[in-house]
Amino acid sequence: MKLIRFGTEGHEKPGVQLADGTRIDVSGFGQDYNEDFFGGDGLKRLGNWLKTNQASCPKVSNAERLGVPLTRPSKLVCVGLNYAKHAAEAGMKVPKEPVLFFKSTTALCGPNDDVIIPKNSEKTDWEVELAIVIGKKASYIEEADAFDHIAGYVLHNDVSERAFQIEKEGQWCKGKGCDTFAPLGPFIATKDEIPNPNNLNLWLIVNGERLQDSSTSDFIFNVQEVVSYISQYMTLLPGDIISTGTPFGVGLGFDPPRYLKPGDVMELGIDGLGTSRQVAKAYQG
Amino acid sequence: MKLIRFGTEGHEKPGVQLADGTRIDVSGFGQDYNEDFFGGDGLKRLGNWLKTNQASCPKVSNAERLGVPLTRPSKLVCVGLNYAKHAAEAGMKVPKEPVLFFKSTTALCGPNDDVIIPKNSEKTDWEVELAIVIGKKASYIEEADAFDHIAGYVLHNDVSERAFQIEKEGQWCKGKGCDTFAPLGPFIATKDEIPNPNNLNLWLIVNGERLQDSSTSDFIFNVQEVVSYISQYMTLLPGDIISTGTPFGVGLGFDPPRYLKPGDVMELGIDGLGTSRQVAKAYQG
Repeated sequence: MKLIRFGTEGHEKPGVQLADGTRIDVSGFGQDYNEDFFGGDGLKRLGNWLKTNQASCPKVSNAERLGVPLTRPSKLVCVGLNYAKHAAEAGMKVPKEPVLFFKSTTALCGPNDDVIIPKNSEKTDWEVELAIVIGKKASYIEEADAFDHIAGYVLHNDVSERAFQIEKEGQWCKGKGCDTFAPLGPFIATKDEIPNPNNLNLWLIVNGERLQDSSTSDFIFNVQEVVSYISQYMTLLPGDIISTGTPFGVGLGFDPPRYLKPGDVMELGIDGLGTSRQVAKAYQG
Repeated sequence: MKLIRFGTEGHEKPGVQLADGTRIDVSGFGQDYNEDFFGGDGLKRLGNWLKTNQASCPKVSNAERLGVPLTRPSKLVCVGLNYAKHAAEAGMKVPKEPVLFFKSTTALCGPNDDVIIPKNSEKTDWEVELAIVIGKKASYIEEADAFDHIAGYVLHNDVSERAFQIEKEGQWCKGKGCDTFAPLGPFIATKDEIPNPNNLNLWLIVNGERLQDSSTSDFIFNVQEVVSYISQYMTLLPGDIISTGTPFGVGLGFDPPRYLKPGDVMELGIDGLGTSRQVAKAYQG
């Protein structure tokens, strides 16, 4: 199943994208894609509901804006430097255990929304990533049990301002949590659709040029290791997002570095998780 | 006005603590202390509602558990090293601009709940802090306007695992976001009750020994600077929490360092914001 949310910002409704690409409005199901939905066996309940109600669900035009495909999660945890070649281009060593950081959940936006280059930014950069959606509360879980706690997967652009992230005092969060820095979607694919999340091609194209082109088979820490590891440090709630890190090919890694200018177009995708497209815009105060 | 929430974990109701210390149940007002409450002029509406309804509100026993005094915020942003003497004891330099990090919102707990020492932790530490509650959406705001965006203030213990925070790979979040690492309360005091948040005594006592004893007048970056600064990097939503950093006297700063053992009792307070008390407990899997 592919979960979408559609409509204007702040007024999204839940929907489903069918196998043939048709999008349907499932607001009649009566629950949005929130913590209670994922934690309360919502995927199974929605699947059952669709068996009798799918035919009567209103169709959604493909012209409709797609929103974040779930409501605001309690957290958006990211793994840094999870591909060896990306660690090298960032000038950092390959970590011995996962590097974690948080993105602000206010950074979330729809998959095709504009990415706003913040005020005073000169180093806004892209990062295609596979993100995991938690389906069941996870605390101190074993790797062998990790998949039991996963609802599905979603495409994420972990947009990053490198000066804010690295050149400012302290931690990375200043360059990771700016508004619109987390385009998510087009849809959440439930885990049955992605038999092996540790072997998916992912890519990102800027203005027609393919700059990231890799596979999650190059992960330093795979999906089950990452979920288990994070759960040793905090409880993951249903609907929480884990973004698993980006491969080689970000703007920071070029010599000289290449950063986003207003009008630049990012297109990204992952096998089985669709594609998204964002236009970079200057902040308008 | 002093906002409280009371009841068992996950089933808290909103209340108000009156000037004489009496606590009353205001669930009849019909709205919990969430983003919509703070963003929708809830303090004013609640104040008006109390004018006619206070006398009929049920009293709450002082024996009732206090919960987090607002519902889960979108984020809990913290300022690191915001007192010069604490930066020195932590072996870090005084920052030229605020150091920011996030705590996981799943770390929040009631002011008198147990603090759980995580599995494999040997360095769980305390940090009394003044926290700010945002009252109005804040993006790129000036220092002069910061107070317009503040709803009130609350006592916070920024519990921290130093090995997870500093000795692990990467960012601080592993040692800051563990469950129960953010006891908040007893109450949110609305800003009219705290005429000058930049001149409040704050202290923390472990097993009867006063280990932190300072004043927010020693801030490197004061309340209005911090709110304005953070708003340059992310939008602050109503109900979001900013914790302003801890003064000298954490366990890490002692020679040898002193960390929490099961049974240790922390008592902390800030002028005008009441006191809280947590017992450290070992994690029971």
